Amino acid sequence: MEKNIPYKIYLEESELPKQWYNVRADMKNKPAPILNPATLKPVTKDDLKPVFCDDLIDQELDDTTPYFDIPQEIQDFYKMYRPSPLIRAYFLEKALNTPAKIYYKFEGNNTSGSHKLNSAIAQAYYAKKQGLKGVTTETGAGQWGTALSMACSFFDLDCKVYMVKVSYEQKPFRREVMRTYGASVTPSPSETTEIGRKILQEFPGTTGSLGCAISEAVEDAVSHEGYRYVLGSVLSQVLLHQSVIGLEAKTAMDKYGIKPDIIIGCAGGGSNLGGLISPFMGEKLRGEADYRFIAVEPASCPSLTRGKFAYDFCDTGKVCPLQKMYTLGSGFIPSANHAGGLRYHGMSAILSQLYDDHLMEAVSVEQTEVFRAAELFARVEGTLPAPESSHAIKAAIDEALKCKETGEEKTILFGLTGTGYFDMMAYQKYNDGVMSDYIPTDEEIAKSVAKLPQING
Amino acid sequence: MEKNIPYKIYLEESELPKQWYNVRADMKNKPAPILNPATLKPVTKDDLKPVFCDDLIDQELDDTTPYFDIPQEIQDFYKMYRPSPLIRAYFLEKALNTPAKIYYKFEGNNTSGSHKLNSAIAQAYYAKKQGLKGVTTETGAGQWGTALSMACSFFDLDCKVYMVKVSYEQKPFRREVMRTYGASVTPSPSETTEIGRKILQEFPGTTGSLGCAISEAVEDAVSHEGYRYVLGSVLSQVLLHQSVIGLEAKTAMDKYGIKPDIIIGCAGGGSNLGGLISPFMGEKLRGEADYRFIAVEPASCPSLTRGKFAYDFCDTGKVCPLQKMYTLGSGFIPSANHAGGLRYHGMSAILSQLYDDHLMEAVSVEQTEVFRAAELFARVEGTLPAPESSHAIKAAIDEALKCKETGEEKTILFGLTGTGYFDMMAYQKYNDGVMSDYIPTDEEIAKSVAKLPQING
Repeated sequence: MEKNIPYKIYLEESELPKQWYNVRADMKNKPAPILNPATLKPVTKDDLKPVFCDDLIDQELDDTTPYFDIPQEIQDFYKMYRPSPLIRAYFLEKALNTPAKIYYKFEGNNTSGSHKLNSAIAQAYYAKKQGLKGVTTETGAGQWGTALSMACSFFDLDCKVYMVKVSYEQKPFRREVMRTYGASVTPSPSETTEIGRKILQEFPGTTGSLGCAISEAVEDAVSHEGYRYVLGSVLSQVLLHQSVIGLEAKTAMDKYGIKPDIIIGCAGGGSNLGGLISPFMGEKLRGEADYRFIAVEPASCPSLTRGKFAYDFCDTGKVCPLQKMYTLGSGFIPSANHAGGLRYHGMSAILSQLYDDHLMEAVSVEQTEVFRAAELFARVEGTLPAPESSHAIKAAIDEALKCKETGEEKTILFGLTGTGYFDMMAYQKYNDGVMSDYIPTDEEIAKSVAKLPQING
Repeated sequence: MEKNIPYKIYLEESELPKQWYNVRADMKNKPAPILNPATLKPVTKDDLKPVFCDDLIDQELDDTTPYFDIPQEIQDFYKMYRPSPLIRAYFLEKALNTPAKIYYKFEGNNTSGSHKLNSAIAQAYYAKKQGLKGVTTETGAGQWGTALSMACSFFDLDCKVYMVKVSYEQKPFRREVMRTYGASVTPSPSETTEIGRKILQEFPGTTGSLGCAISEAVEDAVSHEGYRYVLGSVLSQVLLHQSVIGLEAKTAMDKYGIKPDIIIGCAGGGSNLGGLISPFMGEKLRGEADYRFIAVEPASCPSLTRGKFAYDFCDTGKVCPLQKMYTLGSGFIPSANHAGGLRYHGMSAILSQLYDDHLMEAVSVEQTEVFRAAELFARVEGTLPAPESSHAIKAAIDEALKCKETGEEKTILFGLTGTGYFDMMAYQKYNDGVMSDYIPTDEEIAKSVAKLPQING
């Protein structure tokens, strides 16, 4: 190992971030305003009040304030599982025989198994502060639902999770983790909501979808006194909370005099990637430093690399606001990729704008290659990664192998968002050699994108 | 939070142990010699050579050398997931409203999900050093098998795991983790071994047992050139490797001037408890300090609290050496308790001797109470604990509540050996309110103990 650089860098408590960083403040081209789905006009705070918590609306709409104080209660909660380690991948470098120096920021060492907890605890805190009884949300694979149930349990808030029915049945362990933290978990579509009953009547055997679960969660929130709806990705407020990842990483790297050349993250809705790159992107936007940023998405759901930059609904049910983003169309149904957290038709408005301004690159990778990278990583670095996170591993390995060809000693930082302990059915398919790849045709994407809302002209 | 004591104490790399501590060196009453099962005479190194690795036999038989150097390769591997954090349970203290100060050493932040990796990597290292092709082992719940498959993958050793058939079928995810690390996992009893075939013929529908899996793993090792058998608990060599837990904990506590009054750990075969208490027990044995030590076992399998201190076989198949220990008899079949790692009929010879010499206490706790403690812990401290580890949580809470009654500000340290992510079927039973408790009758225990080998006279 290199002198003075430990395998794992843990910041001291006194070095932990006390403020979140809002990268929009430093962007010349701000993300376009989000639109009210009923009027297609920019939303006002009052439009959002029935659905979202007050303080979170302020954060969502503020694109000028660079820093937001992290409330002490959230800082205290963060101390239970943060700082997350910044790890030097000495054994991966050795296995690849690359001159590149590889670091990863590992967010999986908490019971939610991912970075989702960083925003869940913030959203639960503001809900509690507002005196609410509880919150509602949807979950697919279950990482976000788990994180939110942990956060709500901590602040003694009621937590109602609508879980896509097929996941509810196929991932009973995730469901039980949520129940252990006191959440009520309802398979969606359900008989609990009007929209759920309607869908069940229309499609009696349906196993549900994320779009339907969102619609049920929103209906539940707006129709019950003291409840609001919360969301784990895509929104700018979520990227704000997730900036804690990048702030810690930057502090740790600065402390040891390490400057990354390339920063890589997987991207579904964009919460982890946005959080990781934010403070580095801020330096780039202010002209203080330069970095390459790479978003990695699944070839089966390539919103940045093959989608259109346009206004679209954030949900399939079209009840949430519209935002301008790279999108495959809100009706796009990605194939049954095992990285559930990356199966989203659109991308964070912040990241979409940065990508459109050529401040960030994007690549797409195929599932089987991703699991091959995951297997190598698990065997040499010890940690069994989540399928989502493994997209970033795959891209980091590719960049490290390019360095091997050129002999360049580049420094690579990637985000390892979580662990794969609840994804063993996917690993089993890979282990059995029966994993398949699916890439949508140009025609399929064109067909879906053609249905984008009229607002785009 | 208390001034200057962080939530989590991480040692610097330079503070990590470079030697393991062998507590037997400081014991006045040494554990009785282990016996050859064929001759019932104390084993020699040559007796053990066909079954165990050479260096590990040396460690097993050495009760005088206080410190063993940790080879550099193992120190490097430890750096991937160690130091484990020593955590101040501020939120649990608050929830209990106790004046006690509670600390826990958390060993679950690695893909094996438990402390088992500490010894697995050591055993794999010595197998590799000896030039072996691979190792065989058995696994029940799967923590040990997972840890060993990770360690073997790292040293490029073949790893054959015999997994109790009922677990192989009911815990497919654990099985897939092992396969991802390249291990071959065989449901036991199998057609692969003579003993397996014999058992299958005699009991065609059997779902297997740990005893049978051990016998198959031993037969596989001794009948294949270049293979040895390895074991994840009970043996003194395992407690030696696990001393890294206690050494780190002691260094961290010394660094902040914290002196524990009570040290608590769950006890199945004794590897975690023995590792955690070793350096503290050393001080007590040398008269340098005093501590209370508490072993916590399940009421369904109470070897220390209700067993007999006598020579017994370590395995049901009676192929492994005998050791003098607290035992319920090698034929004792514990009820289907969900803490698979604690369902063992005997106890480490070291811990048995210390208990018999009144240097350590023991309590037994019932399963439902254990899960109640686990649920509270998960909700306030964030981490979802393994059922095994939760036995220690339950006892720590009991001691903290005693402090609440007396007003004493005692300092409690307990070992949190692992996470419960693969134990959600057990949590589901608890969540559904259908968990049952089972305590063996005096008659059942007497009947089993009556069958102890003749050597006990």
